[in-house]
Amino acid sequence: MANTALLDQLMTALRCLPGVGAKSAQRMAYHLLERDREGGRVLSRLLAEAMERIGHCSQCRTLSEQELCQLCANPRRDQSLLCIVENPADQAIIEQAADYQGGYFVLGGHLSPLDGIGPKEIGLDQLQERFASGGVKEVILATNPTVEGEATAQYIHDMAQQFGIRTTRIAQGVPMGGELEYVDGATLAHAIRGRSEF
Amino acid sequence: MANTALLDQLMTALRCLPGVGAKSAQRMAYHLLERDREGGRVLSRLLAEAMERIGHCSQCRTLSEQELCQLCANPRRDQSLLCIVENPADQAIIEQAADYQGGYFVLGGHLSPLDGIGPKEIGLDQLQERFASGGVKEVILATNPTVEGEATAQYIHDMAQQFGIRTTRIAQGVPMGGELEYVDGATLAHAIRGRSEF
Ligand SMILES: [Zn+2]
Ligand SMILES: [Zn+2]
Repeated sequence: MANTALLDQLMTALRCLPGVGAKSAQRMAYHLLERDREGGRVLSRLLAEAMERIGHCSQCRTLSEQELCQLCANPRRDQSLLCIVENPADQAIIEQAADYQGGYFVLGGHLSPLDGIGPKEIGLDQLQERFASGGVKEVILATNPTVEGEATAQYIHDMAQQFGIRTTRIAQGVPMGGELEYVDGATLAHAIRGRSEF
Repeated sequence: MANTALLDQLMTALRCLPGVGAKSAQRMAYHLLERDREGGRVLSRLLAEAMERIGHCSQCRTLSEQELCQLCANPRRDQSLLCIVENPADQAIIEQAADYQGGYFVLGGHLSPLDGIGPKEIGLDQLQERFASGGVKEVILATNPTVEGEATAQYIHDMAQQFGIRTTRIAQGVPMGGELEYVDGATLAHAIRGRSEF
């Protein structure tokens, strides 16, 4: 192999990206070096800045540069309606697909006791405080239709019940065992409209 | 959308990678920010270093951190046998697949007059100097089996003829119109063994 040590390191580093294997990493490295060095420099700079400056919204836990994300800071969003999702990708796809005007709470995962992921690890203590402080009238449970997603929805439902908050679950229009972020927009919009009491 | 300006910029920058569309870029950005910030930082640093420090070997034009690449600097490689490829990816796959002990010359493309890519743009002036200085006994033409790759091979063949250098073409075991870098190793090794006079 004529690969330099640095080139090998770059190919290895590219494999930290999801869906990128050895072959793709090689093509990416060669592409940037042979045809788009400026693109590589821009990507390097934005990666560094993003890893450094993007944190989580103090209210809804989504990714945010500011203490409060744009959505939480928007007074036209109805924060008495709270859509609970597993991750920012799910939030983004609901924003794109559905005509939803409420707020969000982003768990950053789902309950998974065997992996040491309990209520605290997915921010449920913070969510409970929010329930306790009043102002939330309805919770839409939009966790994934997987075993773990359902268990997490059930846990949040029980918690909301203690505060007399209505909980709904987005309609099952998605294949069981599937991931929310791969569902098409129309199905998802339909599922939100057809939500039922949990 | 709750996306921050910086997050949007990162997703756009990720699309400079080959094979990465809007959906993949989003998944990559979320993955790094939610699950692998250290991986993102390492990738940022290696991208910057690679774009800065990796140049081209002064002898064979492949990607190299040094003036002379490891392969050209290796005295056990027989530089009187020269395999001519379009790009470093093709060189890498030949190195992996075939038991080849000669040298390389990496064009960095193929002749494409309509795009303004003539002999000089793919280093053929440098290759001619190398032919003129003696020492090259055989040239293996391993450009892609495409119209442009064949035209480029023909041009180099004519050039080699002027210096009485033998030229061979790797055997056609690859589908016409295909790209060399997608061919499996066994086929490629066979094609090199079965090379014929051009
Ligand atoms: Zn927020
Ligand atoms: Zn070299």
